[in-house]
Amino acid sequence: MTRKPIVAVVGAATVTEDIADIAYDVGQSIARAGWNLLCGGGQGVMLAACRGFAEARQLESQVAVGILPSDDADFANEYVDVAIPTGLGWARNAVVARAGDAMIAVAGGSGTLSELAYAWQMQKPIVVMGDSGGWSAELAGRCLDDRRRDPVLSAATGSEAAALLEKTFGR
Amino acid sequence: MTRKPIVAVVGAATVTEDIADIAYDVGQSIARAGWNLLCGGGQGVMLAACRGFAEARQLESQVAVGILPSDDADFANEYVDVAIPTGLGWARNAVVARAGDAMIAVAGGSGTLSELAYAWQMQKPIVVMGDSGGWSAELAGRCLDDRRRDPVLSAATGSEAAALLEKTFGR
Amino acid sequence: MTRKPIVAVVGAATVTEDIADIAYDVGQSIARAGWNLLCGGGQGVMLAACRGFAEARQLESQVAVGILPSDDADFANEYVDVAIPTGLGWARNAVVARAGDAMIAVAGGSGTLSELAYAWQMQKPIVVMGDSGGWSAELAGRCLDDRRRDPVLSAATGSEAAALLEKTFGR
Amino acid sequence: MTRKPIVAVVGAATVTEDIADIAYDVGQSIARAGWNLLCGGGQGVMLAACRGFAEARQLESQVAVGILPSDDADFANEYVDVAIPTGLGWARNAVVARAGDAMIAVAGGSGTLSELAYAWQMQKPIVVMGDSGGWSAELAGRCLDDRRRDPVLSAATGSEAAALLEKTFGR
Repeated sequence: MTRKPIVAVVGAATVTEDIADIAYDVGQSIARAGWNLLCGGGQGVMLAACRGFAEARQLESQVAVGILPSDDADFANEYVDVAIPTGLGWARNAVVARAGDAMIAVAGGSGTLSELAYAWQMQKPIVVMGDSGGWSAELAGRCLDDRRRDPVLSAATGSEAAALLEKTFGR
Repeated sequence: MTRKPIVAVVGAATVTEDIADIAYDVGQSIARAGWNLLCGGGQGVMLAACRGFAEARQLESQVAVGILPSDDADFANEYVDVAIPTGLGWARNAVVARAGDAMIAVAGGSGTLSELAYAWQMQKPIVVMGDSGGWSAELAGRCLDDRRRDPVLSAATGSEAAALLEKTFGR
Repeated sequence: MTRKPIVAVVGAATVTEDIADIAYDVGQSIARAGWNLLCGGGQGVMLAACRGFAEARQLESQVAVGILPSDDADFANEYVDVAIPTGLGWARNAVVARAGDAMIAVAGGSGTLSELAYAWQMQKPIVVMGDSGGWSAELAGRCLDDRRRDPVLSAATGSEAAALLEKTFGR
Repeated sequence: MTRKPIVAVVGAATVTEDIADIAYDVGQSIARAGWNLLCGGGQGVMLAACRGFAEARQLESQVAVGILPSDDADFANEYVDVAIPTGLGWARNAVVARAGDAMIAVAGGSGTLSELAYAWQMQKPIVVMGDSGGWSAELAGRCLDDRRRDPVLSAATGSEAAALLEKTFGR
């Protein structure tokens, strides 16, 4: 299988500039690693990550995928290459977690929390940006329950997050 | 509309006897309030709550509904009156949260956490059994993000949980 | 397992009085058989079937369940006893087909067609009201593909439909 | 918006060589039109379409997306560039229909029928390969119900199918 790894980036749709900067850095690092990016396709962390990804893309074939809750692709941010409007409402959070080979979280409220909880339940490697606040900061270094022994990993920069995931991808 | 309120009970599928006792008490209190009960339809907290519900039912028309992740109703516990096998896998957690008029959580790991996060995001009244451990204990009294000002409520007994919900149902 | 069989009734949300009468008859027959009724929870065929069910109920414990596409239970018709707003949009058609032990269709357009196709794919017994027009009339007696040898059954009355299902339930 | 149109290709997972050839031709034509391809990610029509797409790709940035029913990306065929394992079971058929800007069907049994019914319900342009048999042949030129006046279009070749869609995309 030569498919590129695809990393889900999750976080709030409304963010401060500082948090957007962290998400942008995460998107760039995913691009530089040669991976694809997956997200909820919306604004805030999602938009900033997609923008960073678009600007640091190494290969034309790298894509940012947006898995939208809406019926309509027009809700995707402008840096989403492939929009998947699911029409599933918030149940799309389960699809975001399921479809990523790993998850990186930036800040985040209850929507992000559901995605982190799913990623944990689905045995996905998880890295949170430990300095970004919200549920990312709160869950850094923790085990969400006793089904796994590997804690939620924490990174300070996008490149550190990518390096942590690179290890879990066994390369 | 004369439909009975329906309360979602969430919690882990594998539990200690102490936690099962709390879930049983919760199920009884929902029954005594004259409501319907909704859950994931499985074992552990779900089974204990359904059993308490079945044994304290006031009306023949009160039902325990199990929203299952599986394709097959046979995974429902024996106290589920109406089994809804969704075939959706863990995305059914979104349906459990959406379909309840309110949520009561007992203990719980990452699966329960995703359901609590959803219930918060969906503006549902939430009561956790504060002494049951797990994510219920951890989230008692908290706001999961700033979209709501009403914290996660905490109760020590099933009847206290029901009384808290009765207030939110505006009676 | 002593759970009542649950039969999914599908059909269009906008119908003529003649078609509503057929759906009403189907709902009555499900009630008289002692089963539960499942439907999409909306208007037209769904409302008429739920009304027939409500008026012919044999046991207080028999319920009409509405699996709604919407986020909100208020879209359920007034004869739905248990409303399950899924928030899944049209993907709820898959849940309607999956959760029924069998399906009865009355007339129907493309939404009903997706439910019939799913029920076939999921190996559920299917009865269509052969004189009701729409996709029900068109698929009566047919095999939708070669994965099953038992054709879509056709009935002229609700009691005939119930009798056909009774046989498939092995009683 | 500069996102490429994305066309859903649907059809059976088990096919004859003749039908695979038609699907391959469809995939090539989608590629030559400069669009992205979406499918269920599996075998049969899906694999053949993805292979044709891969071999006729005009731009590195064109991708074949597979929306899988499974929990695991490993079920994707080898020509899928972006695998989206949804974990939703057959409810993923709703996502396939929703996420495509249009649908092309090749032959097909009940699974394909549910996707065609959804695409109709969701107001998507639909082209069937009229000579491919199955539900594609049967629905060619038809209106599935009275909510739309534009019938299911029929094409004899992939390039004809692409030309028909090009018109609906308003170019």
